[in-house]
Amino acid sequence: MKISIAQINYHIGNFEGNLNKMLEAVKKAKSEKADIVCFGELATCGYPPRDFLEFSDFIKRCEDVIESLKMVSNDIAIVVGSPTRNPVPEGKDLFNSAYFLFNQEVVHIQHKALLPTYDIFDEYRYFEIATDFKVVEFKGKKIALTVCEDIWDVDNVNPLYTVCPLDEIQNQQPDFIINVSASPFSFNHSDSRKKIIRKNVLKYGIPMFYINHVGAQTEVIFDGGSIVMSPNGHVYEELKYFEEQQKCFELDEVIKGTQSMEQSMSKTEKIHEALVTGIKDYFGKLGFTKAILGLSGGIDSAVTAVLATRALGKEGVRVLLMPSQFSSDHSVNDARQLAENLGIQYDIIAIKDIYESYMKELKPIFKDLPFNVTEENIQARVRGMLNMALSNKFGNIVLNTSNKSEMAVGYGTLYGDLCGGLSVIGDVYKMEVYELARFMNKDEEVIPWNTIEKPPSAELRPNQKDSDSLPDYDVLDQILYQYIELRKGPAEIIAGGYDEKLVKRILRLININEFKRYQTAPVLRVSIKAFGMGRRMPIVGKYLS
Amino acid sequence: MKISIAQINYHIGNFEGNLNKMLEAVKKAKSEKADIVCFGELATCGYPPRDFLEFSDFIKRCEDVIESLKMVSNDIAIVVGSPTRNPVPEGKDLFNSAYFLFNQEVVHIQHKALLPTYDIFDEYRYFEIATDFKVVEFKGKKIALTVCEDIWDVDNVNPLYTVCPLDEIQNQQPDFIINVSASPFSFNHSDSRKKIIRKNVLKYGIPMFYINHVGAQTEVIFDGGSIVMSPNGHVYEELKYFEEQQKCFELDEVIKGTQSMEQSMSKTEKIHEALVTGIKDYFGKLGFTKAILGLSGGIDSAVTAVLATRALGKEGVRVLLMPSQFSSDHSVNDARQLAENLGIQYDIIAIKDIYESYMKELKPIFKDLPFNVTEENIQARVRGMLNMALSNKFGNIVLNTSNKSEMAVGYGTLYGDLCGGLSVIGDVYKMEVYELARFMNKDEEVIPWNTIEKPPSAELRPNQKDSDSLPDYDVLDQILYQYIELRKGPAEIIAGGYDEKLVKRILRLININEFKRYQTAPVLRVSIKAFGMGRRMPIVGKYLS
Repeated sequence: MKISIAQINYHIGNFEGNLNKMLEAVKKAKSEKADIVCFGELATCGYPPRDFLEFSDFIKRCEDVIESLKMVSNDIAIVVGSPTRNPVPEGKDLFNSAYFLFNQEVVHIQHKALLPTYDIFDEYRYFEIATDFKVVEFKGKKIALTVCEDIWDVDNVNPLYTVCPLDEIQNQQPDFIINVSASPFSFNHSDSRKKIIRKNVLKYGIPMFYINHVGAQTEVIFDGGSIVMSPNGHVYEELKYFEEQQKCFELDEVIKGTQSMEQSMSKTEKIHEALVTGIKDYFGKLGFTKAILGLSGGIDSAVTAVLATRALGKEGVRVLLMPSQFSSDHSVNDARQLAENLGIQYDIIAIKDIYESYMKELKPIFKDLPFNVTEENIQARVRGMLNMALSNKFGNIVLNTSNKSEMAVGYGTLYGDLCGGLSVIGDVYKMEVYELARFMNKDEEVIPWNTIEKPPSAELRPNQKDSDSLPDYDVLDQILYQYIELRKGPAEIIAGGYDEKLVKRILRLININEFKRYQTAPVLRVSIKAFGMGRRMPIVGKYLS
Repeated sequence: MKISIAQINYHIGNFEGNLNKMLEAVKKAKSEKADIVCFGELATCGYPPRDFLEFSDFIKRCEDVIESLKMVSNDIAIVVGSPTRNPVPEGKDLFNSAYFLFNQEVVHIQHKALLPTYDIFDEYRYFEIATDFKVVEFKGKKIALTVCEDIWDVDNVNPLYTVCPLDEIQNQQPDFIINVSASPFSFNHSDSRKKIIRKNVLKYGIPMFYINHVGAQTEVIFDGGSIVMSPNGHVYEELKYFEEQQKCFELDEVIKGTQSMEQSMSKTEKIHEALVTGIKDYFGKLGFTKAILGLSGGIDSAVTAVLATRALGKEGVRVLLMPSQFSSDHSVNDARQLAENLGIQYDIIAIKDIYESYMKELKPIFKDLPFNVTEENIQARVRGMLNMALSNKFGNIVLNTSNKSEMAVGYGTLYGDLCGGLSVIGDVYKMEVYELARFMNKDEEVIPWNTIEKPPSAELRPNQKDSDSLPDYDVLDQILYQYIELRKGPAEIIAGGYDEKLVKRILRLININEFKRYQTAPVLRVSIKAFGMGRRMPIVGKYLS
């Protein structure tokens, strides 16, 4: 038996586009004499469709795609994820399901039982929990058809769920497992994925075909890396990261485990590729071709500009250099040098005159009140507005250049440097931004070394340095990670050897700045806990603030 | 038996504040010889605590509040909602529970079974579903203790859930029901609430004590209106809307149904009171006292200014009048007249010079490209920046003045008029804004009648009117309501007699403007479907766009 798996970059709600890609893949699978071709979870509509699932019209269009696929399932079985209607009135209206189509008939529909409802996932918002599990009999084989999370509850010490679908189905003696997934990227996710698949194949003694999505849907990035695993726990093949790919496998060979092939990528390279994919698909799926951003001469905007250029090409990126009276010469020079290294269009607009026009109009109200964060913010906002003006005039999207460390502590100006349609490195801590910059420079000096080596500064008042108001980034990042990713409380973090006053100040800064993050662009997610949909905090909360 | 119910304005994560309010209420109940005093759902930490629930430290602090309440439960039983730990490893780590405390002991803990996971609710993100239901025996009575949603699944034709907790508990023959709730306001919610409580008391033939929260937590507003209902389905008493209140009831009298007392408020008055509460608590809970907003002379900013003044007092509101070369004289006059009527501080800053300083700097890049939305947006953003400058300098919060109709179709400038810490009328359609304005003027002319009667205009180019680019608001609002609140698809809406081209254009505008709403301030929720946490849409989605 030959099984073809298709790792596809779907587009939410683009039914025609998704269908066409699947029809192409069916054709290719047929030409390779495959018996089964497999797609991803909710492949008809893309993942995550969010509240579009609450529109009957949207569900109807998913069903139309299934109908079209059914029509071409002569001589080949098609496994494809799609929402289906719950036939009984009790419970949620939908299931998250995998269809098994063959010879223009629906042979089986397997619903999903484990509905991820944490972090960026909201599946219980829409779907009812499946309670029936049945193998599909096809050409003398019994197939355990599963949807994504349904394989993630094996031998867990603290499982999120109370059932394990494959345990339920085991007594029906399946020959192999197909898992249709939409499993988003985080930089350590491909390892977890292999571990959980290995646990499953070893426990049940049968191979698994695991099909993932690839490509980005706004902030959610899929890295691909679909896996075929032999019963001995070896990776028979792992499809490419961040690329569409389709490949056909002979079941007997997979069972024998005659080959072993895995992808290999460092953490920093994975993050780099994920962010490039995130930018490319944000623009591509919205129908835009060109980004604009401000280059300050600092490392954050430099790294963002490089990522944007690698995603959109040098014709796809335009930058503004917007020095103020507080900008150092080296900043402008470093920014210009970077733009020249990348071959991207740049313009210089000094913000002094605009800034002064504000100060003149505000003088009757501000009188002689001293220079403070107000004037710093005005500079940042003038820059934001100039970016937006070019965005409006030329139809570009502004890229936000804030990193995760500053976003965490609110070191950024709302409607100023926090402007932008997409936050590129908002899930990358400052120390990781440095790693990215060095990775980008590994073959040649793309980012001027001076940008990487100088002490970070917002340059919004004379001789300002980040370290004037923040601890060193290596300490800051460690505290942030423990609070944001690990959700430790203050006592636990302090017990790890950090200064009590510092920890309390940092946690307070995080909590009182929820209002800023609430209004920031979607953040490309590369960690297990990014700001945005996956981290939901009350703004008026009084906790640790 | 005497039962005291306490309708309290909790504050998320403010454990000390919440505890102190409850201790006061226990004292009062004791002084009135109550046998039981009842608080709301998750009263220890406030509702909705969102991802704070994922912090062990946060849960520990909830448990500390329970300990403190237990200590004062001598001679009085205390019913209070709080998160509790799930003792078994399988399933989510927490339950959403109601404690029954008496004589310094935990007599019973009832977990919640029906976990709302729709709209603004995310309960299955945190909580395991309860499966055990047991009455509490107390002083010869059997009490069915329930948490919020657990009473909302009675005789539904299309229930969201597969169990009905009171059906499970019925064979234990309870004498009355206590329901600890946190049931957010929407303008038609108090009616639904009474209907569902009535269904329950009539079905089971016993009275119910229903205790709600009051006050706002960022965008989520609780209207109070706690209810004591007799077994005959009459409202024995309904506590006040939008105010804290505590009251003691004699169970026998409630069973007899010797009185009937309901609150009465029109839809517009309810929305008015809800928005005033929303502003007041947003500022109060964040520790701010003064709002700033731009007054354009139009109806949206006028209504917002009146609401702000009613919430914060005239010392608590400051406005900026920021005319451009396109502003009509009457706009400035109407705005000034409103400020004078309200007795609030106003300043006038003409934006022409700042606008021209932008145009001068952009000239080398824009060259002779024609005036378009870019220049309109610059005006809106200069105004936004001036508001933010005063906000920064004087520690005020900017109020956003966009209405739901414009927010829906993207008729607003990101980082311009969409600025602000809180969106006051972002869940109020334009036609409802007019109703609010007329309601405000019912006794005297607060808002100049000219503001209410003139055709709406953004005044960003010569002789501009909203109707140049949008259909009449009465038609627009109807289409928006059907798509947003009723989630009808295009075919259904068109079938209702609306122009096909118009419907498709409007739905497209809604969908392509998700990126703007993603970055807008939290919106005070007064309808069943507000923009924000309760409506989650993909930005790169291609559906209807």
